Amino acid sequence: MCSPQVEKIIRERLEKEGRPVFSRRNLLKLGGLSAAGLAAATLAPARRASAHGAAGVVDLSHVFGTAMPTYLLGEGPQREDFVTVENDGFYIQRWNYTEHAGTHVDAPGHFHTDGETIDNYAAELLYSPAVVIDISAKAEENPDATLDVADIEAWESANGEIPAGALVFMYSGWESRWDDAEAFRNADADGVMHFPGFSAEAAAFLLAERDIHGIGVDTLSLDNGPSATFDVHLSVLGAGKYGIEGVANLASIMDTPGALVIVGVPRWEEGSGGPCRLLALV
Amino acid sequence: MCSPQVEKIIRERLEKEGRPVFSRRNLLKLGGLSAAGLAAATLAPARRASAHGAAGVVDLSHVFGTAMPTYLLGEGPQREDFVTVENDGFYIQRWNYTEHAGTHVDAPGHFHTDGETIDNYAAELLYSPAVVIDISAKAEENPDATLDVADIEAWESANGEIPAGALVFMYSGWESRWDDAEAFRNADADGVMHFPGFSAEAAAFLLAERDIHGIGVDTLSLDNGPSATFDVHLSVLGAGKYGIEGVANLASIMDTPGALVIVGVPRWEEGSGGPCRLLALV
Repeated sequence: MCSPQVEKIIRERLEKEGRPVFSRRNLLKLGGLSAAGLAAATLAPARRASAHGAAGVVDLSHVFGTAMPTYLLGEGPQREDFVTVENDGFYIQRWNYTEHAGTHVDAPGHFHTDGETIDNYAAELLYSPAVVIDISAKAEENPDATLDVADIEAWESANGEIPAGALVFMYSGWESRWDDAEAFRNADADGVMHFPGFSAEAAAFLLAERDIHGIGVDTLSLDNGPSATFDVHLSVLGAGKYGIEGVANLASIMDTPGALVIVGVPRWEEGSGGPCRLLALV
Repeated sequence: MCSPQVEKIIRERLEKEGRPVFSRRNLLKLGGLSAAGLAAATLAPARRASAHGAAGVVDLSHVFGTAMPTYLLGEGPQREDFVTVENDGFYIQRWNYTEHAGTHVDAPGHFHTDGETIDNYAAELLYSPAVVIDISAKAEENPDATLDVADIEAWESANGEIPAGALVFMYSGWESRWDDAEAFRNADADGVMHFPGFSAEAAAFLLAERDIHGIGVDTLSLDNGPSATFDVHLSVLGAGKYGIEGVANLASIMDTPGALVIVGVPRWEEGSGGPCRLLALV
């Protein structure tokens, strides 16, 4: 698995330097860096960009791993060592996966042949005020619960109208099942999954009556588990908006008005969407 | 390539609805959405979160594609259709690639067995004031040019000290070669590449004398092309900081003091780094 080029580079390095690689002592030889200086650099506390309008960063992303729950059974990502520090001097993995895994984006092109793919999707739409609507109480009673127009109205009664350019999240509490893929998929004997999602009417309301960038869920699909018609996918992506599935940690920004969310999705070429880092600035 | 599960889902949907999928007319049936409402939703201008401290978003990321230049020859990412709208009702690609391709992060674990991998790297370090140091004039004369301590001093003379928690970028102008992988790698007859990078001394200075989150380059490596010792990788990653390679569009924020950069890197499990979306808020 080790590339001849890598071997050549590492061999040349070791020959030239005549040293074992990566020890702290060797780092200290570089450029007159003192031990005290390196310790200071290493231990310097993280500084937040608080002078720039945000006091902190909240991570809304799950680890993208091989054991994650997936919409399609058996479609978990695969990874293997490509090169390693021990054998090659540096470490790189090879990944093999389908685009809709983990915390990820659904681009309009996912359901719509004329829809934009994620490589060319407008970057300014990836920065949005967050709205988190809590349906965890009814989701606890009914796994097929939907975020309905009434839930939006209740949120607006308490918080004011959904702001322009919002990214509207459903918080169902489902993320607590993330580490148990079977419980997260929650399939019945017929293979039909049961988990919460947006209702078709709520999606239609947001598209027609509000100005949103997209919607997100803490489950495997914008539509609820038993949906076979994908009405929410069709309407939201058909309107040129995006969806985000597998969102984590929404409860931590639920009571933080003004949280701004960045959808850090690489520009996957002709991508129907794909894995992303979702970060909130609070 | 089409999963039996996908086929089943789509077949059931078509049977239930008795309709072709994805036409605009069908979207209008959903949830009482009027034609005018849908047009308004579709055509609503992008709203920027200008009330929240940023006037716009600048994309610092290249498209992650199969023809990109790569550090190791022949290591371009691969992709194929997994399912398509035409055949299956929705579109998903399958990707296969090694982690260090495109606009991507080098995590400490890339060169350091004890170094943090990207899945658990502190999210608050991914949000940083940007410093862009322009060495394009000397890079035009010498493809092996380095960003030196003198370049940092010159930048600070003009702009003040590098702010705490900065992400310090080298702008060499190399991105203009991105679409020509051979010119971007710029290998000589012996296979040695020639492109600009940080000098070991500049990296050591930033680590010891300034408080940075990481460094970034618009080339294939933090070290310059001919480096066989990876001194900059070793010191920066050894100090627990990160690097970003293959950055795009840096000239557009060079004269924008206070630009904040978000490193949108998915939490690749045990990742040595990996593809990211790099966005600047300006």
